[in-house]
Amino acid sequence: MASNQEEVKLLGATGSPFVCRVQIALKLKGVEYKFIEENLRNKSELLLKYNPVHKKVPVFVHNEKPIAESLVILEYIEETWKGNPILPTNPYQRALARFWSKFIDDKVVTAAWKSVFTADEKEREKNIQESFEALQFLENELKDKKFFGGEEFGFVDITAVFIAFWIPMIQEIAGLQLFTAEKFPKLYKWSQEFLNHPVVKECLPPRDPVFAFFKGLYQSLTASK
Amino acid sequence: MASNQEEVKLLGATGSPFVCRVQIALKLKGVEYKFIEENLRNKSELLLKYNPVHKKVPVFVHNEKPIAESLVILEYIEETWKGNPILPTNPYQRALARFWSKFIDDKVVTAAWKSVFTADEKEREKNIQESFEALQFLENELKDKKFFGGEEFGFVDITAVFIAFWIPMIQEIAGLQLFTAEKFPKLYKWSQEFLNHPVVKECLPPRDPVFAFFKGLYQSLTASK
Repeated sequence: MASNQEEVKLLGATGSPFVCRVQIALKLKGVEYKFIEENLRNKSELLLKYNPVHKKVPVFVHNEKPIAESLVILEYIEETWKGNPILPTNPYQRALARFWSKFIDDKVVTAAWKSVFTADEKEREKNIQESFEALQFLENELKDKKFFGGEEFGFVDITAVFIAFWIPMIQEIAGLQLFTAEKFPKLYKWSQEFLNHPVVKECLPPRDPVFAFFKGLYQSLTASK
Repeated sequence: MASNQEEVKLLGATGSPFVCRVQIALKLKGVEYKFIEENLRNKSELLLKYNPVHKKVPVFVHNEKPIAESLVILEYIEETWKGNPILPTNPYQRALARFWSKFIDDKVVTAAWKSVFTADEKEREKNIQESFEALQFLENELKDKKFFGGEEFGFVDITAVFIAFWIPMIQEIAGLQLFTAEKFPKLYKWSQEFLNHPVVKECLPPRDPVFAFFKGLYQSLTASK
């Protein structure tokens, strides 16, 4: 659908779950784009120009027009490239997809992250508890669907890549069991289906260097306690 | 546009900026609805049934189908009742509206709230600073437009009712000057236009009881220091 005049760029960083969301949507839609790797310890002029508010990746740039915030970018991609939809057509189902995506960002991402990357023991415990509660809501919501989106993956599944790929990695680093097949059998089955989907598989970062990066982060944190 | 079979309910609480957003959108669209006042200190069975995840207002219920989260509700209302649109048609402009609405929720609401309702002095100072920075971004973004939406108010303006109505009230309670005509002249002018818009005016809660409620909250907080 992209014409020759179109220029599609993604400012990202390998290992970011938020960047990975955008990559999955673009791959699913068959949109060609140029990936620009950002060094987050030394942010480029380009990043500061395109996202002066948050100074974060991902930034999606379509014909020189920048958009930040991964869920906002997903909505834009959906409205611009209509093939392989990631949102249902029914307004109520769309509302539910938006609700659960926001839930993942507000309740799962932060809690799971702080379950691992927090030096304060009490704070860690609180976040571990909150992660369990949040994941349980998703376990219940999934019911017996293959994907949150139904037979095909969609908006919520893409948002939840953090749960499928990142949580298993960071919990291993911390020796935690936040998200396991025993505790969340449906969600775990979903995660395997999702990670093995050919589109998703192509977009995941290489596990070893990302694991090493987060392990270093964890060690520097626990060493400074 | 609503047929006789349609049932539209809003579970809310007078004085909530998030509920007020939904009321403004419904009024603008001319949607009739039944307002169900919730007592947040003694939540109803209905609220717990409709919003088991967050147990918060607003909950919008259309033909027995509940939706929570004010921005998700606004999107649903926009998709269901198409007259008097609150989002532009252009995908890029829509993305910007979603970006700034999210910005208001993530950066302004929390910071301004904690500038007033936090006992810890250092935490308060930090949040006051963050409020200034966030409001400055909005001041710049407004440029010389009448509303964030242009000539008519839209998604961002509705989200920003918190800034127009609630910040002046809570800053007065705390004797703070977060949002003033001197510091943010464009945003202040916008707030006056917005609050005086006939649709908005009809949806604002009565100031005195809401002021008294928040003042009580503030006093109980400062008394317990």
